[in-house]
Amino acid sequence: LQRDQAALIGVDWGTSSFRAYLIGENGGTLDQIESNRGILSLQPGEHERALAEAIRPWRNSADGPPVLLSGMIGSRQGWREAPYVRCPAGLSEIAAAIVTINASALGEIAIVPGVLDDARDGPDVMRGEETQIFGALAATNSAEGLYVLPGTHSKWAKVETGRIVSLTTYMTGETFAALRNHTILGRLMKAGEESRGGFTAGVRSAHAMKTPGDLLHEIFMTRTLGLFERLRGDQLSDYLSGLLIAAEIIAATKEGGEEATVIGSPGLTKRYGDAGAILGLRLKPAPENCVALGQRALFGEWMKRRSAD
Amino acid sequence: LQRDQAALIGVDWGTSSFRAYLIGENGGTLDQIESNRGILSLQPGEHERALAEAIRPWRNSADGPPVLLSGMIGSRQGWREAPYVRCPAGLSEIAAAIVTINASALGEIAIVPGVLDDARDGPDVMRGEETQIFGALAATNSAEGLYVLPGTHSKWAKVETGRIVSLTTYMTGETFAALRNHTILGRLMKAGEESRGGFTAGVRSAHAMKTPGDLLHEIFMTRTLGLFERLRGDQLSDYLSGLLIAAEIIAATKEGGEEATVIGSPGLTKRYGDAGAILGLRLKPAPENCVALGQRALFGEWMKRRSAD
Repeated sequence: LQRDQAALIGVDWGTSSFRAYLIGENGGTLDQIESNRGILSLQPGEHERALAEAIRPWRNSADGPPVLLSGMIGSRQGWREAPYVRCPAGLSEIAAAIVTINASALGEIAIVPGVLDDARDGPDVMRGEETQIFGALAATNSAEGLYVLPGTHSKWAKVETGRIVSLTTYMTGETFAALRNHTILGRLMKAGEESRGGFTAGVRSAHAMKTPGDLLHEIFMTRTLGLFERLRGDQLSDYLSGLLIAAEIIAATKEGGEEATVIGSPGLTKRYGDAGAILGLRLKPAPENCVALGQRALFGEWMKRRSAD
Repeated sequence: LQRDQAALIGVDWGTSSFRAYLIGENGGTLDQIESNRGILSLQPGEHERALAEAIRPWRNSADGPPVLLSGMIGSRQGWREAPYVRCPAGLSEIAAAIVTINASALGEIAIVPGVLDDARDGPDVMRGEETQIFGALAATNSAEGLYVLPGTHSKWAKVETGRIVSLTTYMTGETFAALRNHTILGRLMKAGEESRGGFTAGVRSAHAMKTPGDLLHEIFMTRTLGLFERLRGDQLSDYLSGLLIAAEIIAATKEGGEEATVIGSPGLTKRYGDAGAILGLRLKPAPENCVALGQRALFGEWMKRRSAD
């Protein structure tokens, strides 16, 4: 059995995190580095040095595996802007829009663009999530489906014939944190074990809502359910979590589709799966190494296009 | 023309504010005092002294106009708990549940209870707003209607035959503040004149929403509309305000009713009126002195009950 040769250094470079993967010919992850050197921690001009220091264990000259970056590093606030590709956006459209930097010591560096959906109620965007979605598609040898990347800004994307045809962001995680940490709701909340009962009550409240503004009412119920001891203090945070996550899931699946693939941390993926189960939807976890698989797929497509030029 | 005699000292004592009214026989306000000595600024045992100091210009002994308190002062965190009265709650049910304190220097002090609606999706409550609603009813010689008291926690109440039959709280103001001050949305916002265009865009977004979770998406649009320069930085705060206020109004009027009375500050009352106009609803301002009028009405009812006993 031969060892997989290093073919690519892929970096998922976000606002607050830096995750680098040494990726083999077959898309396997040979090694991995994580740090908190996200783009918000860097000044203009510091990116190449930060990158070179981080990947030195794998490469210390212009020679070595090529480097491909995805995520917010390609935004206006990042290293070099890689303008958004409009939906429908598949591997080929995105590879065609990859932007390169000729770094002084590291040589050519590729930056993956984000995706823009401007066809509905306003512009909606993702950066980095598209790469993970292509990884999930590659891992499952699939060309369609509904994908969700839960978190601070949850991203839902619909894929048809290998292309992202629409995307929608829900500010679920950040709204949850702002409500819990910066409103009266936090006062009655107590830390504790994860509460299945609180979470389920929140999901059920979401399911019973009729109009969007009802959410502003059910959010307040987090307080009165605590005040009147219908829920314990250690259940309130999970109530609010279940309420917001289920509201997001119901909205994102309102046009049909009873299953989706969740690309996220094990904890959040479980929460989405649990909420889906209560709502009668199947939210199944994606394979784990979607970032590296997606970077490998995009890089391969990019190389193919170059050799064809 | 004889001067109205002082008949009552009414205090609207909330968590962060203290507003006292010297009320005449006819319900007119003869004098008024405001301070920031809300209940959160006081320790147990400090209430009588704070009250006596505040109303000294009107009364400096056990003699003088009787004192009636409404608002959060009657909550568990206040001076003395006045347990909630359940809906339907009219003047007579609330007056019957007034709690008294025999204060050492000021003599008997009456505390108005709050109202509880526990008939639907969970317990919902108000404290102080019921008094303002009875003031609005008295001022317009009315016994029914839909009333909204906008703010941090917006309260909507339905009145039939002089009784509050249901109430719903929307955490609109506090959600707005948490999102603006403690999420990424604030970063693109710029201070400026009130933006009619931003507000209207927010109301229209709310009108177009279909399911509750859509609100979590439209909240995020505050960011992308700014990023893509569809709205200017000085319009974004009003966009978010219009979005949340209109979502609340649509939810609160979903069971019918094309008009409501707004009891609030001139600024918020105008915002609700403007949002209502865009949505085809008539949200008209209440008379200004609803607190004092309501306190006078409740006190009168309480006296009548006492003399009948």
